Amino acid sequence: MSLQQLSSQKVFGGQHVRYQHQSQALNCSMQFAVYLPPQVELGQPLPVLYWLSGLTCTDENFMQKAGALKMAAELGLIIVAPDTSPRGADVPDDAEGAWDFGLGAGFYINATQAPWSTHYKMYDYVVHELPALIEKHLPVSDKRSISGHSMGGHGALIAALREPERYQSVSAFAPITQPSQCPWGEKAFSNYLGTQRETWMEWDASALMAQATQHLPMLIDQGEADSFLVEQLKPAALEVAAEQAKYPLTLRLQPGYDHSYYFIASFIDEHLRFHAQALSA
Amino acid sequence: MSLQQLSSQKVFGGQHVRYQHQSQALNCSMQFAVYLPPQVELGQPLPVLYWLSGLTCTDENFMQKAGALKMAAELGLIIVAPDTSPRGADVPDDAEGAWDFGLGAGFYINATQAPWSTHYKMYDYVVHELPALIEKHLPVSDKRSISGHSMGGHGALIAALREPERYQSVSAFAPITQPSQCPWGEKAFSNYLGTQRETWMEWDASALMAQATQHLPMLIDQGEADSFLVEQLKPAALEVAAEQAKYPLTLRLQPGYDHSYYFIASFIDEHLRFHAQALSA
Repeated sequence: MSLQQLSSQKVFGGQHVRYQHQSQALNCSMQFAVYLPPQVELGQPLPVLYWLSGLTCTDENFMQKAGALKMAAELGLIIVAPDTSPRGADVPDDAEGAWDFGLGAGFYINATQAPWSTHYKMYDYVVHELPALIEKHLPVSDKRSISGHSMGGHGALIAALREPERYQSVSAFAPITQPSQCPWGEKAFSNYLGTQRETWMEWDASALMAQATQHLPMLIDQGEADSFLVEQLKPAALEVAAEQAKYPLTLRLQPGYDHSYYFIASFIDEHLRFHAQALSA
Repeated sequence: MSLQQLSSQKVFGGQHVRYQHQSQALNCSMQFAVYLPPQVELGQPLPVLYWLSGLTCTDENFMQKAGALKMAAELGLIIVAPDTSPRGADVPDDAEGAWDFGLGAGFYINATQAPWSTHYKMYDYVVHELPALIEKHLPVSDKRSISGHSMGGHGALIAALREPERYQSVSAFAPITQPSQCPWGEKAFSNYLGTQRETWMEWDASALMAQATQHLPMLIDQGEADSFLVEQLKPAALEVAAEQAKYPLTLRLQPGYDHSYYFIASFIDEHLRFHAQALSA
């Protein structure tokens, strides 16, 4: 559980720090990024928001493009941004190098099928191993929230629905809400989990939602001009399940916004305030 | 003077639009980006901030990484971000493909030496041709300000010092303040302008500053942990010249900040407010 600091940059009075460590869950070396707001220097442990990025991203995209750090500095919120898959020459990738499976596309689940199951345990990594590492080495409280974009929105939703006791709140931007019923999810799940579709349901937000008994504050923003909305994202499936489970979901359709970081930037401050309120409750 | 729209994305209620056009000054096809804040829909012409990026950048870096668009939307400020050099297969580049000269490194001056002088007229482009195009096609007023980073900070300073009547205010992040006396500038100027150093002085901010008679509000932020500070940027040279010319320069040294977009993001809102005040005066 040792941690090597790769770089540190001052931002809004705090620090953007990149770390490297050997992951036991993923069986490889991993990098992640942390934003430590200026309040860290006051010595009080601070709450943490875990951010899960989408397909093709690394730990860098959110920190560079979301425009989140000003508000994080104002709210005294630590943000942790992990990578989106195991990494390294030993880690198997999509046979044709596709961007929607394999490296950069771990889908935040635990693979059960060879050759993926040796490394692709992203759920264990982002929900358990990484928080344990953060809580050992950084000045954080035990209050956690989770958010993400697209594939990472799916990751945030399944983490909060599977282990709600670990989080104070959950949000997502344009999440894949029903991976068992969309092309991205079907490709990933059939490889990582095998072709028995009933095993997919424990990693499908809409299926998990239908059976949820413990509720968290949940906020989802979805752009109406998002080119992946109809085929891949399908927020209506989650909404129907939430109604069934009487889950307090706030799903907002945002006219004119697409799937990009420009969409995320436009609403990230509201998400950070939403999480800060739950984390301080 | 026709303009082809490449893409449009909604951001903070406004639009990030990328355009392509044939530049006469540069003798090639160019792309640039514009942020149109939501106030555009009210029908009043809005003032424009021109942003000049640094070495290796395109029109995309500032829009994606500076976190500027929320404040631009609040202030009703249009931002125009051009590319950093002429582009295309016909445009000569550094013989060894170096990142500090040639493509991505036009230095915002008008080259006089072959083979550069056929395309590298970036001063004419960003100070004259591009504003004329913007003012013909977009809902802008005739009020302009200019800002930039590193090589682009140099560009903003020489534009404001050479043609102050065209701008209401100027600012810069970590600008190259004395290109005639630093390795980046000496390499670029000796190629673009030739080896007669006296011809360099009309493109050197510190030399221009010493003779400036018409003054604009000028704000410069420089990170003290910037690895290029001592060898390349040298703000003291500009400060001495400003004192000599009694030019009202506000130069702020920011402890702990480096040369990256994290530094720019930390202070861009203050720069936008500074320009908005001058533009509305």
